[in-house]
Amino acid sequence: MKRDALVFYSPVDDPTAWRDALASELPDLDFRIDPDVGDPAEINYALAWLPPKGFFRRFSNLKLLTNLGAGVDALLNRDDLVPVPITRLSDPGMVSLMTSYVIFAVTRYARDMHIFERAKRRGQWHYVHPRPLAEIKVCVLGLGELGAHAAKSLADMGYDVRGWSRTLKTIPGVECHAGRGSLETLLGDCEIFVSMLPATNDTQALLGARELALMPAGAKFINVSRSAVVDEAALVAALRSGAIGEATLDVFGAEPLPPEHPYWALDNVFITPHLASITVPALAVRDVAESIRRVRRGEPPLHQVDPQRGY
Amino acid sequence: MKRDALVFYSPVDDPTAWRDALASELPDLDFRIDPDVGDPAEINYALAWLPPKGFFRRFSNLKLLTNLGAGVDALLNRDDLVPVPITRLSDPGMVSLMTSYVIFAVTRYARDMHIFERAKRRGQWHYVHPRPLAEIKVCVLGLGELGAHAAKSLADMGYDVRGWSRTLKTIPGVECHAGRGSLETLLGDCEIFVSMLPATNDTQALLGARELALMPAGAKFINVSRSAVVDEAALVAALRSGAIGEATLDVFGAEPLPPEHPYWALDNVFITPHLASITVPALAVRDVAESIRRVRRGEPPLHQVDPQRGY
Ligand SMILES: NC(=O)c1ccc[n+]([C@@H]2O[C@H](COP(=O)([O-])OP(=O)(O)OC[C@H]3O[C@@H](n4cnc5c(N)ncnc54)[C@H](OP(=O)(O)O)[C@@H]3O)[C@@H](O)[C@H]2O)c1
Ligand SMILES: NC(=O)c1ccc[n+]([C@@H]2O[C@H](COP(=O)([O-])OP(=O)(O)OC[C@H]3O[C@@H](n4cnc5c(N)ncnc54)[C@H](OP(=O)(O)O)[C@@H]3O)[C@@H](O)[C@H]2O)c1
Repeated sequence: MKRDALVFYSPVDDPTAWRDALASELPDLDFRIDPDVGDPAEINYALAWLPPKGFFRRFSNLKLLTNLGAGVDALLNRDDLVPVPITRLSDPGMVSLMTSYVIFAVTRYARDMHIFERAKRRGQWHYVHPRPLAEIKVCVLGLGELGAHAAKSLADMGYDVRGWSRTLKTIPGVECHAGRGSLETLLGDCEIFVSMLPATNDTQALLGARELALMPAGAKFINVSRSAVVDEAALVAALRSGAIGEATLDVFGAEPLPPEHPYWALDNVFITPHLASITVPALAVRDVAESIRRVRRGEPPLHQVDPQRGY
Repeated sequence: MKRDALVFYSPVDDPTAWRDALASELPDLDFRIDPDVGDPAEINYALAWLPPKGFFRRFSNLKLLTNLGAGVDALLNRDDLVPVPITRLSDPGMVSLMTSYVIFAVTRYARDMHIFERAKRRGQWHYVHPRPLAEIKVCVLGLGELGAHAAKSLADMGYDVRGWSRTLKTIPGVECHAGRGSLETLLGDCEIFVSMLPATNDTQALLGARELALMPAGAKFINVSRSAVVDEAALVAALRSGAIGEATLDVFGAEPLPPEHPYWALDNVFITPHLASITVPALAVRDVAESIRRVRRGEPPLHQVDPQRGY
């Protein structure tokens, strides 16, 4: 008899944690870890992160592809995939980790902590009078499952928060804007910028030399989504000249960031190794299982990605 | 005719900002900036921060002393004061600044940011798998006007928060404990500690060598209240040995921290120059004015300090 099986692939995630978590939700599901996939015709679902080229070619009966993360850019525009619904992870653990990172990075600048870090290294007591948080304008670019929560949390802390997305959102305490036409004004108005935009055709190098130059002198830039959203060479130049005062970067064109990359030598760049957020299997598994149940019933999955839109 | 006057003294705060803010609430109040106090017999109220010895001796008609900050330790046990009600500042601006500092300092450790700061300086991509915030136990010592809000905000972010105070509190999402008897268990149970305790006779060197040794190896210690709460020499020794892994300190026995102090040379100590929170006159003035109104009516002021208790 043909089994109802899922194939798991990830270079970074723990397969046993996922198998155990999923078994508690869907005990009848046959969980297969690549390369032990058994009969490929039995694979109805895939749970995958950065699968190699050609990975999906074997699975002609695939009915659902679950991206083992939030950003699906590496799953789109592939030539090995039949058109199946694609869903991405979204779980409270991922949201709270991402928000904690964004709050940390924004507050480090808002409270002048980067100045105190450097004063400490010089052995210097260097007083800077704190500014009320309500006077600090923070712009969150991208108000999706992660961006909306981060923006709301920053507003709850007392920051003056502006948000930007493709379609207009309503978020309590956040001044929301939408569409390309509103971007220029926002760039000129804020002092701390957080990119939470997916990498798509439309967002490719959205922040180029021109857009960076629109930000006030000494602006702070935080990127926790994808490096493709920014023109890296333009950012390096702006950080060198001080036009952009500081940057906190979690994502890069090449990862791990090569030792010769100019970011390493720039004292005004804070680097973290792509971990602004991760997925906690025990928390994410509920939605993963629910999407499989829905697809079994012939319904669309949760958190479905629009390949045309790119996210 | 005798005037109803207030005397202002502060080595750090802007007198005109306070005069203007107070004028909008109490236009009839005569605001006098030391040393231009006029007839000392007309001084019914004082708004003061770190006034010099003997400052109050002239003001025999004083009816209310407002401490221009939260910590009143420098106003108690003076020999120049007649027994008048003492009140301290408490305003939403001060609360949100303090909470932002605490969230920053806790999250810097919880998200391994101190490790990435050092890796950056070495030019190294150093991955550390993030831990869910719910697994990180944070202990907030002192649940007053500032501590309670910080503890609640940390819990809202997803941390596992324990709180400690003299009398038992109820704070949503925070596991509250009270009294000396519960301290030892708490010290052994948590990994990040935040001191938000006032300096009083009871809290003097509350965290000595013995208490620091009860914390798990490598524990993180954050002090935003008063340095007197900790035995500084014991803390230096623990930071040198690594028994305490990291410390973030905003308050010191001597301020500015002298250049020869051992903290400067310790790479695991983050130093900020006593500014975890400040008062924003425009936000604090409402309660300051309301306390004066109450005292005029013969009622007790808001946020009254108990000199016996010391806070
Ligand atoms: N560094 C890390 O560890 C890490 C972890 C997880 C995720 N990420 C990255 O974070 C990104 C955001 O995650 P998410 O879950 O919040 O994404 P999401 O739910 O897909 O939301 C994307 C947001 O970006 C907006 N957007 C997309 N294209 C736009 C355009 N051309 N102009 C203006 N706004 C546009 C969307 O607008 P609408 O709301 O109008 O559609 C939406 O608000 C992911 O794509 C991933 O790359 C990074
Ligand atoms: N670094 C800065 O920039 C800055 C700025 C503002 C304030 N501060 C400091 O922060 C401190 C806290 O401010 P706050 O406004 O929250 O103070 P608060 O309202 O007076 O509250 C003090 C808290 O400490 C607790 N406490 C006092 N003695 C204790 C003891 N012996 N054992 C256990 N708990 C004890 C109190 O317990 P109960 O609730 O049971 O009474 C209360 O929860 C201030 O005293 C000041 O020194 C520093």
